[in-house]
Amino acid sequence: MSERQTRRALPVAELVQGVQAGNRLLLARAISRVENETDDAHALLRALFPATGRAHIIGVTGAPGSGKSTLVTTLAQRYRALGLTVGIVAIDPTSPFTGGALLGDRVRMRALSGDEGVFVRSMATRGSLGGLSKTTNDVVTVLDAAGFDRILVETVGVGQAEVEIASMAHTTLVVEAPGMGDEVQAIKAGILEIADILVVNKADRPGVDKTVQALEMMLETEGSNARQLRHHGQLLAMQATADPAEEAARWAVKVLKTVSTTGDGIDDLRQRIEDHQAWLHASGEITGREQVRIAHTLENIIHAELNRRIKAHLPTEKLNGVVEAVRQRTSDPYTVASELLTQMDGRA
Amino acid sequence: MSERQTRRALPVAELVQGVQAGNRLLLARAISRVENETDDAHALLRALFPATGRAHIIGVTGAPGSGKSTLVTTLAQRYRALGLTVGIVAIDPTSPFTGGALLGDRVRMRALSGDEGVFVRSMATRGSLGGLSKTTNDVVTVLDAAGFDRILVETVGVGQAEVEIASMAHTTLVVEAPGMGDEVQAIKAGILEIADILVVNKADRPGVDKTVQALEMMLETEGSNARQLRHHGQLLAMQATADPAEEAARWAVKVLKTVSTTGDGIDDLRQRIEDHQAWLHASGEITGREQVRIAHTLENIIHAELNRRIKAHLPTEKLNGVVEAVRQRTSDPYTVASELLTQMDGRA
Repeated sequence: MSERQTRRALPVAELVQGVQAGNRLLLARAISRVENETDDAHALLRALFPATGRAHIIGVTGAPGSGKSTLVTTLAQRYRALGLTVGIVAIDPTSPFTGGALLGDRVRMRALSGDEGVFVRSMATRGSLGGLSKTTNDVVTVLDAAGFDRILVETVGVGQAEVEIASMAHTTLVVEAPGMGDEVQAIKAGILEIADILVVNKADRPGVDKTVQALEMMLETEGSNARQLRHHGQLLAMQATADPAEEAARWAVKVLKTVSTTGDGIDDLRQRIEDHQAWLHASGEITGREQVRIAHTLENIIHAELNRRIKAHLPTEKLNGVVEAVRQRTSDPYTVASELLTQMDGRA
Repeated sequence: MSERQTRRALPVAELVQGVQAGNRLLLARAISRVENETDDAHALLRALFPATGRAHIIGVTGAPGSGKSTLVTTLAQRYRALGLTVGIVAIDPTSPFTGGALLGDRVRMRALSGDEGVFVRSMATRGSLGGLSKTTNDVVTVLDAAGFDRILVETVGVGQAEVEIASMAHTTLVVEAPGMGDEVQAIKAGILEIADILVVNKADRPGVDKTVQALEMMLETEGSNARQLRHHGQLLAMQATADPAEEAARWAVKVLKTVSTTGDGIDDLRQRIEDHQAWLHASGEITGREQVRIAHTLENIIHAELNRRIKAHLPTEKLNGVVEAVRQRTSDPYTVASELLTQMDGRA
């Protein structure tokens, strides 16, 4: 029996046991099954789910070049120094040319290698420009069940990915770098909607004060704590049912300066994240965030299953056929869609 | 009978006739039905569809502050001077605070009011941060059936919206403004994947040469014409079946400078758009773009219908209930999703 077959034969129960016992090899295998969406992936996630809900999940997003990877690495080192275990999920943008991930865990975060208390997984966006991989949330679930104290999810912040990460994380950091100039405008709406903490990294570079000032002005003008507790999904829409915190107990979004290469400001950032975590629990807002996270998970699962069904009913060859018929105006998209949905219903 | 009831009573056939006869009042009503997703919206779109496929659809995207609205207005005026009719769909970002659109057609594009050959419609993104409204594509279909020669679709370029607009348009303009600095990096992958023409607007401002240079360097490094003929949808995945153009016949993405307030460079831009249109037809690439556009439309329709069904099976109250059960770990998202899908299947 080949190595590959041996791997396949490993039952879900053993993987679950391994993940919860801290076996890194079995954890890696479990994550691979989830990432590859194998037939038993849902059974695995279902079995792991009761053990989840303990990790503090921290989303880290921002423009490319803001030094997010180094920031995450340095932050992880500080957590380790305090005896906390850290899971890291790094979403790499997929190259539009090769289809492959632009970075890998071998390149990034070398400083963390060899430490048993850290587990790093790189994932490719797999074609959805700037978006998270559709299995990111499931990988976070596995790491949560594995007992990591902190889970850092790093992604390039462009539009949709920012919204997704806010649905997934308890605390969201938006990272900027000096020299953004007018472009602060571009990310304004996104930042205010999702940031719990704003970080100006590379703070040893010129222009840092201007960037900090611009961000602080934004916060003053628009009001901090603008984050809405809601799920932004396309399939499901929900408003968290948890009571909103009292005005007095609101979280103040602040701008912190860091230099991740030297470690300057990292302890303040770590402290601020802990303050946010404490505030989430004290204010009861943690309940709302958990609700949003669950709705997001639910939507992901439903979406994936419906996609599978539609693809089964409309394989590429058939899709090409109907698209061509529509292009030649012998059919129209509304009729085609209606026929497809009828077929799915009746299993005709 | 009230005015409102009279409107409702207007049958689809009359609307279709009105749209095709150039009746602006009926066109506005048809668009409203499509936007509001009334019960007869699909019947209306189905009836209009055979008359579509004649307009040249131009997507205009870029960062806020790049002057897209003024550019679109000026471009529309040039088309009018040539006797061409113009439909404009302007997607306004929805305010995260009020939920309303940040601009309206009364504010923008005043210069075009009173011209019967131009029709402007503003749409709000309706909560999907930076995304297109889900009915944008349907509104374009109505304008196409109404016989407009050029349709300009303007949207704020953040992540997903850029990808969507490229799926929808024949020619995609990405608009930048001087003073972007390092941030060019941030939009690099997105630009190269979708831009047919790069525009540096506000070219009378300092830093214009640096921005043009940065963009041109990007094009040189990564190779122009990187645009892939493919549909990026989540439900459907397709590769255009049209043969790729010969190497020699490839489209060269160029950087053009404009000052939309004075009109400088606008004629060159208009000419470049016409060149692209001619190239699409000469190279046969128009077929591939139409295929992508149709797949995008098809996906939109299927998606909307599935969303409707899921919401019918999982109304807010029930959703809140299951989310709470999952949060308390008395259930898990995989079981909930599976139950919901079984209910949808069996209509239990």
